[in-house]
Amino acid sequence: MHTSGTEVSGFIGIIIVQVTILIIYGIFVRYDYEMLPTTNVTSEEFAAIEKQHRVSYPHFQDVHVMIFLGFAYLMTFLKKYGFSASGFNLLVAAISVQWAFLARGVFQLDNGLIRISLSRVIEADIAAAVVLISMGALLGRTTPIQLLLMALIEIVVYSSNEYFQIELLKITDAGGSIIVHAFGAYFGLAVSFVMRMKREENNAGTNEGSSYTSDIFAFCGTIFLWLFWPSFNSALLDDISQQHRAILNTYLSLAAATVSTFVVSAIVSHQHKLDMVHIQNSTLAGGVAIGAVCNLLVSPHGALLIGTISAIISVFGYRYLTPFLVSQFRLHDTCGVNNLHGLPAILSAIFSMFYASVATTDIYKDSLNDIFPAMNWKNSSYALEHNTTITVGGFGRTNMEQAGYQALGIISTILIALIFGALTGVVLNLPAMRNLKKDEHHDDDIFWNIPDDFKHI
Amino acid sequence: MHTSGTEVSGFIGIIIVQVTILIIYGIFVRYDYEMLPTTNVTSEEFAAIEKQHRVSYPHFQDVHVMIFLGFAYLMTFLKKYGFSASGFNLLVAAISVQWAFLARGVFQLDNGLIRISLSRVIEADIAAAVVLISMGALLGRTTPIQLLLMALIEIVVYSSNEYFQIELLKITDAGGSIIVHAFGAYFGLAVSFVMRMKREENNAGTNEGSSYTSDIFAFCGTIFLWLFWPSFNSALLDDISQQHRAILNTYLSLAAATVSTFVVSAIVSHQHKLDMVHIQNSTLAGGVAIGAVCNLLVSPHGALLIGTISAIISVFGYRYLTPFLVSQFRLHDTCGVNNLHGLPAILSAIFSMFYASVATTDIYKDSLNDIFPAMNWKNSSYALEHNTTITVGGFGRTNMEQAGYQALGIISTILIALIFGALTGVVLNLPAMRNLKKDEHHDDDIFWNIPDDFKHI
Amino acid sequence: MHTSGTEVSGFIGIIIVQVTILIIYGIFVRYDYEMLPTTNVTSEEFAAIEKQHRVSYPHFQDVHVMIFLGFAYLMTFLKKYGFSASGFNLLVAAISVQWAFLARGVFQLDNGLIRISLSRVIEADIAAAVVLISMGALLGRTTPIQLLLMALIEIVVYSSNEYFQIELLKITDAGGSIIVHAFGAYFGLAVSFVMRMKREENNAGTNEGSSYTSDIFAFCGTIFLWLFWPSFNSALLDDISQQHRAILNTYLSLAAATVSTFVVSAIVSHQHKLDMVHIQNSTLAGGVAIGAVCNLLVSPHGALLIGTISAIISVFGYRYLTPFLVSQFRLHDTCGVNNLHGLPAILSAIFSMFYASVATTDIYKDSLNDIFPAMNWKNSSYALEHNTTITVGGFGRTNMEQAGYQALGIISTILIALIFGALTGVVLNLPAMRNLKKDEHHDDDIFWNIPDDFKHI
Repeated sequence: MHTSGTEVSGFIGIIIVQVTILIIYGIFVRYDYEMLPTTNVTSEEFAAIEKQHRVSYPHFQDVHVMIFLGFAYLMTFLKKYGFSASGFNLLVAAISVQWAFLARGVFQLDNGLIRISLSRVIEADIAAAVVLISMGALLGRTTPIQLLLMALIEIVVYSSNEYFQIELLKITDAGGSIIVHAFGAYFGLAVSFVMRMKREENNAGTNEGSSYTSDIFAFCGTIFLWLFWPSFNSALLDDISQQHRAILNTYLSLAAATVSTFVVSAIVSHQHKLDMVHIQNSTLAGGVAIGAVCNLLVSPHGALLIGTISAIISVFGYRYLTPFLVSQFRLHDTCGVNNLHGLPAILSAIFSMFYASVATTDIYKDSLNDIFPAMNWKNSSYALEHNTTITVGGFGRTNMEQAGYQALGIISTILIALIFGALTGVVLNLPAMRNLKKDEHHDDDIFWNIPDDFKHI
Repeated sequence: MHTSGTEVSGFIGIIIVQVTILIIYGIFVRYDYEMLPTTNVTSEEFAAIEKQHRVSYPHFQDVHVMIFLGFAYLMTFLKKYGFSASGFNLLVAAISVQWAFLARGVFQLDNGLIRISLSRVIEADIAAAVVLISMGALLGRTTPIQLLLMALIEIVVYSSNEYFQIELLKITDAGGSIIVHAFGAYFGLAVSFVMRMKREENNAGTNEGSSYTSDIFAFCGTIFLWLFWPSFNSALLDDISQQHRAILNTYLSLAAATVSTFVVSAIVSHQHKLDMVHIQNSTLAGGVAIGAVCNLLVSPHGALLIGTISAIISVFGYRYLTPFLVSQFRLHDTCGVNNLHGLPAILSAIFSMFYASVATTDIYKDSLNDIFPAMNWKNSSYALEHNTTITVGGFGRTNMEQAGYQALGIISTILIALIFGALTGVVLNLPAMRNLKKDEHHDDDIFWNIPDDFKHI
Repeated sequence: MHTSGTEVSGFIGIIIVQVTILIIYGIFVRYDYEMLPTTNVTSEEFAAIEKQHRVSYPHFQDVHVMIFLGFAYLMTFLKKYGFSASGFNLLVAAISVQWAFLARGVFQLDNGLIRISLSRVIEADIAAAVVLISMGALLGRTTPIQLLLMALIEIVVYSSNEYFQIELLKITDAGGSIIVHAFGAYFGLAVSFVMRMKREENNAGTNEGSSYTSDIFAFCGTIFLWLFWPSFNSALLDDISQQHRAILNTYLSLAAATVSTFVVSAIVSHQHKLDMVHIQNSTLAGGVAIGAVCNLLVSPHGALLIGTISAIISVFGYRYLTPFLVSQFRLHDTCGVNNLHGLPAILSAIFSMFYASVATTDIYKDSLNDIFPAMNWKNSSYALEHNTTITVGGFGRTNMEQAGYQALGIISTILIALIFGALTGVVLNLPAMRNLKKDEHHDDDIFWNIPDDFKHI
């Protein structure tokens, strides 16, 4: 196998990256203060640490299951790509989390050092999710080395955009619909577009299909994502009321999206039979679509409505848009991340514009300042009446301005993702990188020693 | 496919139900107060909310995994029905939880409104479990439309019976053996009986068997149910001592049931080899059998004993009773819910009678009032000695009376389940409903676009 | 089948064990005090119980998933042994936890009684893990009766060694690398060595291989172990700072081990393609290797380094050492527990020696006394300066002495495991026990009624 040498050099490249990360950690990364032994910690401080820990650790583990098991198994739907889907998911995520501590840490330096703690671990896992979403668009058409290089670039861009959106634009996006899902989806699609096959090669690969068993494995991934999505959307919320709302709204949105997915799938699919691709993916669209507004007062019926709409859009995307993009633009999207993450995220941003435009202190009370930190509520009747002295940092946005910033958030995120995704695609296409040929796509045999029965699949 | 039209009309029926639910939510359903922004919440109130949240959210997620993953994968044991088992489980549960908020909410109205919160979400998940148990009895012999119609009816009857048992009869049933497991099992069996095939069709379907892979998928469901059953039985207990006991008793009962299942399966099965059906199901009987008494002082050896007995009954049920009911009464029970849920639940009710008959304030102290709210302990020596002033609402039951109410509880639950299950079966058999023919049973090909390899299974 | 009788007599042996355990429980086992109803519990005491409960229950459930699902599915990698791997895992663990309450309880007697509580449940689960590790070495080459007999013996030796190491030698081993992983691995290997086949039989069994599907099931086990290993290592730590460090260090070590596993696997494997055995197992070596030092101040880069080294050792072990031991010593190790548990545990012990040798009160403050209870820090400059009055029970070890005790800990653990493992092997080889023949190895058909498609695998 003349190609194997290339792979080994690629894997040696990985170990160089791993050693480099290790050295950077040695120089710059330290435990956060709460993780250090202390002499004189008051019982109040201690209680606060404990509280934070107890709230966040089960939440962290739920998110952890989503990233490393949910995404991994959702991608095992291809009949001959199960090892790569689940294995490379683990590899890519393991590099991504290490790198994310650094890429995100530079925006939170403490005397030139990066302090890591349990809440940083949740955020690192979420950063890995971004890369895994992009990986879904490319699934089966890259080497693991290309995926890892993409991860290194994407994590840096993601971290910068996250800082830009949250700290500078001050958008609200508790569940990460904009900064995680839209970013990951359109970054991956841009990479996919740049790496697309020449026209003559662009016939459907014989391996790009599922088997009965692989579909059931994949559905297991779906269910874990479905189960823990309320934890994902609520993981980083400190305020207990907001966290409760994020959990309940996500739960309701997912339930409604599930019902609509089955209905629309039966209506639009071949012979009016259900399509497992829709069930595996569009049932989750409700989790994405509620993301940016999950902690807002969308009301239970609002959550149901958002879930319903998102699933309809998602199934139609799988049924009509994805084949259209392949046939017209040779834009492949193996897992359909545009339909699961991209379009529902745009929907979520639109809802966030609507809810920003109607948010008042009369309904949100003090928490408005937490949810929309740049809005002007100092002179609201509520603020005057309650004689509050909280200031808002000089932003003083009106409702419409905040809605405009939400729009700016999703538009700028998509643009940044597309531009840097395209540049990343150019890098991955460099002659120095091994590129898979068409007949090597979606085939575990290229990268793995496979069991004897594999050839009969 | 002339049948497809029927299905589409059925799916359109579902979307009408979903929209109706959405409208009812808009009119009647609101966030509970704790989920609303507040101006003046004291730190004590806040701490109480936080405490509740922290206790219940991991518990909720454990139960959530059971309902949506455990039940789903346990039902994938049929070789050609994995898509339907896991997919329809998700669909039925997603409708059920939405509907359960309403059906249960009418018994807890707040000024004409239904308030939903995180603890209501656990209860909605448990209501879905009831329907999924019934679905187990029917697995592979109905359309998804029939299942959803059953869910809508069953949730209403379940919610009413739950209210009747807990609020009016004041039985103890912390783990839901009576109100969840017995109800779900006998409701489903009654539906199954009414929908049974005509005699001439009643030969064993060729698809009603497992494959090696499908059995391993199903065992994955078993294990998740096994793991989180202590959370299921303890999820709704506020008192920490009772919750600890519920966890530990369930854990011990399951461990003992597991050992006994293996032993009895080896003894009674063909060639004295283990039967995977027993291992998948009867190992869980200990969770059901301990349910109604899990928070009582059954003692560790009591928990082991209950688990042991339940598994013996369950394996014998699978080995002898289920085939007998099929051959004599054409009563099919695909997953054997009578053996996993029905008989162990009756056993649990019998144990609850025993423990009610010996419960005294000397051993339960103040908590007796919480566990058996209708028993008379005002004039017990304990109450007199401790000079307690707690009253018991005028019920003043003796031990024997409470034991009688426990008996009344299980008997009335089974009767209600049988009657309304039979009526539901009549509805599902109406000419307007599509009914599956014998050769359409246990076959994903009827409802799903299936991968190419399916036809070789 | 003349062998079946033997099996039934074996299963009847199991029920005798189960009944004996039940009787012992009746005489000696009681709920711990916190689980009993109380009259006058102060709110402080109540809060302490609640706190403990909340911290430990999600941790327990994570560990619970590892033992009953992670280990079970990791062992399903054999193509024809999935029922036995997952089923016997459940059976062995179910007996082991019941027995562990007793075997461990005799070291914590309360007026002659064994009190069980939620934290004892975590410890019982961990004791079961020890047996399951040993089972991994033997997988497919024993009857379930032999496994259960081994469990009964091993749990007793394990409990005694645990007491010896922690209470008498006073070593530090928060994650159980020494007392759990090294013990389980070398106990199992000693059993395997004694039970090894005669030379003429020792050709590779035709069933000792994986299938594409079985490998993906096994990887599911890997991922659950990988996900919850931070919970395993931190489950029994009370101090919140130590628990945080244990979580974060384990997380980082696993991430680094994963990356290194992929790289080394690609370099050393056939055709430079990845080997699924390495990915399934060596990615977890980081969890073992960090175990004994997970709560120490190893620093983030230290955790990455430990994970990296452990994975390199582990993959080399699978690639070169395991085949060497089979060919030279006929020492079979089906799951390669020496490479996943044994060698990384020795590495962990070596690291614990290093970190013990440099631990001072200047860096660990008061917590040194908790981590190394036998070290002398009374007269350290820190102790004098802070005027502390905490005594250390007269041990007064220096850093080098503590490091020596860590060395003594791993050496004595391995020796005890080897000796009692060999004795156990002798017992399992007794003529009274049914021993599998070579052609019965790794074959579910020996113990299970198997589906029709099994014969085509």
